[in-house]
Amino acid sequence: MAQLKIGQYLFTRIKQLGVQTVFGVPGDYELVILDMVPDVGLTWRGNPNELIAGYAADGYARVNGVGAFVTTFGPGELSAYCAVAGQFAEYVPVIHIVGYPSTVAMKNKTIMHHSLGNGEFGMYHEMTKHITVATTVLDDVNTAASEIDRVLNVYIGVPVDMGPKLIPSDTLQTRLITSLPLNDDAAESQAVSKIISLLKSRKDPVIVVDGSAVRNNVIEESTALIELLNIPYFITAMSKGGISERINGKFGGVYGGGASVEEVRLAVEKSELVLFIGGCLSFYRGEFTEDLKPENLIDFQRFFVNIAGEKYNVSLKYSMGPYFKAGDFVIAETGTSSYGIPASPLTHTDGVRMYNQTIFGSIGYATGAALGSFVAGKEDGSIKRAILVTGEGSLQLTVQTFSDLLRHGLNSTIFILNNDGYTVERLIHGMEASYNKVPDWAYSKLCDAFGPSFPSRYYRVATGNELVKLLNDPTFNAADCTQVVELFLDKHDAPLSVKLATAAVEEFNKRNT
Amino acid sequence: MAQLKIGQYLFTRIKQLGVQTVFGVPGDYELVILDMVPDVGLTWRGNPNELIAGYAADGYARVNGVGAFVTTFGPGELSAYCAVAGQFAEYVPVIHIVGYPSTVAMKNKTIMHHSLGNGEFGMYHEMTKHITVATTVLDDVNTAASEIDRVLNVYIGVPVDMGPKLIPSDTLQTRLITSLPLNDDAAESQAVSKIISLLKSRKDPVIVVDGSAVRNNVIEESTALIELLNIPYFITAMSKGGISERINGKFGGVYGGGASVEEVRLAVEKSELVLFIGGCLSFYRGEFTEDLKPENLIDFQRFFVNIAGEKYNVSLKYSMGPYFKAGDFVIAETGTSSYGIPASPLTHTDGVRMYNQTIFGSIGYATGAALGSFVAGKEDGSIKRAILVTGEGSLQLTVQTFSDLLRHGLNSTIFILNNDGYTVERLIHGMEASYNKVPDWAYSKLCDAFGPSFPSRYYRVATGNELVKLLNDPTFNAADCTQVVELFLDKHDAPLSVKLATAAVEEFNKRNT
Repeated sequence: MAQLKIGQYLFTRIKQLGVQTVFGVPGDYELVILDMVPDVGLTWRGNPNELIAGYAADGYARVNGVGAFVTTFGPGELSAYCAVAGQFAEYVPVIHIVGYPSTVAMKNKTIMHHSLGNGEFGMYHEMTKHITVATTVLDDVNTAASEIDRVLNVYIGVPVDMGPKLIPSDTLQTRLITSLPLNDDAAESQAVSKIISLLKSRKDPVIVVDGSAVRNNVIEESTALIELLNIPYFITAMSKGGISERINGKFGGVYGGGASVEEVRLAVEKSELVLFIGGCLSFYRGEFTEDLKPENLIDFQRFFVNIAGEKYNVSLKYSMGPYFKAGDFVIAETGTSSYGIPASPLTHTDGVRMYNQTIFGSIGYATGAALGSFVAGKEDGSIKRAILVTGEGSLQLTVQTFSDLLRHGLNSTIFILNNDGYTVERLIHGMEASYNKVPDWAYSKLCDAFGPSFPSRYYRVATGNELVKLLNDPTFNAADCTQVVELFLDKHDAPLSVKLATAAVEEFNKRNT
Repeated sequence: MAQLKIGQYLFTRIKQLGVQTVFGVPGDYELVILDMVPDVGLTWRGNPNELIAGYAADGYARVNGVGAFVTTFGPGELSAYCAVAGQFAEYVPVIHIVGYPSTVAMKNKTIMHHSLGNGEFGMYHEMTKHITVATTVLDDVNTAASEIDRVLNVYIGVPVDMGPKLIPSDTLQTRLITSLPLNDDAAESQAVSKIISLLKSRKDPVIVVDGSAVRNNVIEESTALIELLNIPYFITAMSKGGISERINGKFGGVYGGGASVEEVRLAVEKSELVLFIGGCLSFYRGEFTEDLKPENLIDFQRFFVNIAGEKYNVSLKYSMGPYFKAGDFVIAETGTSSYGIPASPLTHTDGVRMYNQTIFGSIGYATGAALGSFVAGKEDGSIKRAILVTGEGSLQLTVQTFSDLLRHGLNSTIFILNNDGYTVERLIHGMEASYNKVPDWAYSKLCDAFGPSFPSRYYRVATGNELVKLLNDPTFNAADCTQVVELFLDKHDAPLSVKLATAAVEEFNKRNT
């Protein structure tokens, strides 16, 4: 029987799922399996820290369909839990591989480094169960292959002695199941009949396409439905960039509960039938100010459809796959940036892809995720322009990502909204409180510090005129190296910051399509 | 009955324990209680991210006896778990306060931001139980005061609506118990008799003072014992800097199992009676190469003494308190730095304090912990010179700490051992592997980027002569601003790196005492 090492089996499976790049930080418990990354034709792209590696795998998975990263037992994995929980909350499939101490050391309860010094080894595995779909520690050579195949979107612990052990390779021929079971025919036709009858009887039906429609890749189906019904449709902050805003001229705007523009809110909430596709509750839907009557709602979810309060076990979509097809990439940070960016209309163009983290909302996420999504876009050839929009407060958490953005030649354009502190926090509480001030950095020097041998440009923008001038600058528009644009904004002026940034990105998009 | 807000009660208790500075990152669930930090006379020192805040609280606690930091529910706390687990593993008392969603939102299972989007709120609290001594979420106004008093070295969740609620202040008059119960007299005299009889009958007795002796503050007792018995004594990497190396001229060196200098190893392992004070197993004790016979060992631990294999329930020490009294501060990073630094003899001087994280061993720790310990040393007036020794690979994880080191005027001198990658990892596995290479940064530009308005100096050192010259430079020795010394080392030459670095610190110490 053909055999290969457990580590090779694992990485082969990951490659079969479509991953080309593995992120992470090396640690001594994982070094042996890191040697096997190139064995199977994968690329290793190490990161400055594990939180960034986790965010990068998240951004990569949003583009590529699945991502993977490797950390060491203890400090490494714990540093990444914030990224792992975000992947879980936002339905982003990422495989987290953790290099474990040897099975012998664990059996003997040896006080290994990176443990808690008490001879126990199971605690991190227990912790991660709260924030992942499935977990395993590969401590048995007889079940290693089946365990690897069982878990996906997951935590896989690999003891340092297990990675090089041989196992049969024959199950690698069995295709991993990544599609949902087919719908029950009877249930499906029952649901369809019900929807058709409601469409005939209710006034002013509308469609809202939310974030899960993007994540579960039912964009083609949603587009077809809008075209077929030819009724007004709306998006949310979470689905922004995931679906065209030019279908049949019926695009109505961004719905966000009480935070919507008034005519959008009325069009959705006064409708007698709202077809809500891939609905995902998050604070970008107006922090619970929505007024949608259940009897007027058809809620299309991944595993069921709820029609006017009645649940049908019919899936939204039969198979998962890469989320997007082509276009530009805009990663917007939690906070001012991802409130503001979705308001920027895309009625002039299709195919702009936007990503943010709307449910879990971890600041610092966007910079790390930008790295991963830009890498994935470069690998599959779909990226035209790599744009990151963040605030200076958020950037400070994961700023060392600049190092990887520079050295991987991603030609990113990074807009830093410098509003002198945590503006969203200020708006919530503590407008003048000192804790909402962040230290002053020289953002103009970040590229020189983090990647002195790579070309970069810095632009300082303090007025609307300067912004317009920059957006007309041919060198800037060429975007042939890393570019940092620091937008100086008043700390109290959140609406202006939103307007400036979105105008900037919009103009930049117009100029480059 | 006098009353005060729950948040004020909490911070008052923390202040009563001796804390002056609270670290953390603001988040909207905690903003209300952050307003109460100055109410009780504490100083808020926010950090670039939560991992750094946790490390800073750790460093602060090692100097001050106890530390505290505040994060938000979800992303904030998860990002700090690596720091929290390190505090737990290394017996460092730190209070982690977590701003929670309101009790109403939690009761109604509302899909709040920073949750996992499933209406659950208990999962992070469950996770943290694996890496803390005690936890509580203050969701009941009637038990808030008693819960705060119950937990210490802990996780305290404060729902956003609870912080401002009033509770009676009278229990603030009750002193918090921070001492151990007294020993049982009979057990104590039994143990003492046994020890005396062994001291009389065994040949070549020696004393080894390990890390827990420092952490539990039995240095005075250890010193007295060495003076009284007048026998050779040894230290370990973990106790380095915690006890004088000039007691009775009996200092023998640094014991680290098979990694010791040969005469040190023989003196300890051939002794018929080793009094091991505060023994703490860690990889700095030679990764399990020790050859100590249980029948020759007296193992003094915090809650018991094990005499030649027999256990006595007698405490090492009756009360905890601030760990150190006076001197300089040297924080050494896990890896090359903390293997090397303890080998630097301190027989010429007393009172040099050194800190590292020997059990949990999280790289990136030292830079964050340096911040906290330097702040604590400045507050209590005990710091003379603030020295951080780290490698460039470790620094990359938490480099944004520079921002706080600069703006708080700590005049740190930072030695960066630039050996072109993860050298300790290289020695373990993958000497030429690309994953052990880290990106090239311009370390000369870090201070300009992270604190452009604060004075700083950069020194480039590539040869032994340059190092000697620098150490004789009066401006450098004045250490009147932040100083960065980049030591260029060959990537394969770990012994040289250790020699250079320790020689550097030693010379620097000599010149400044």
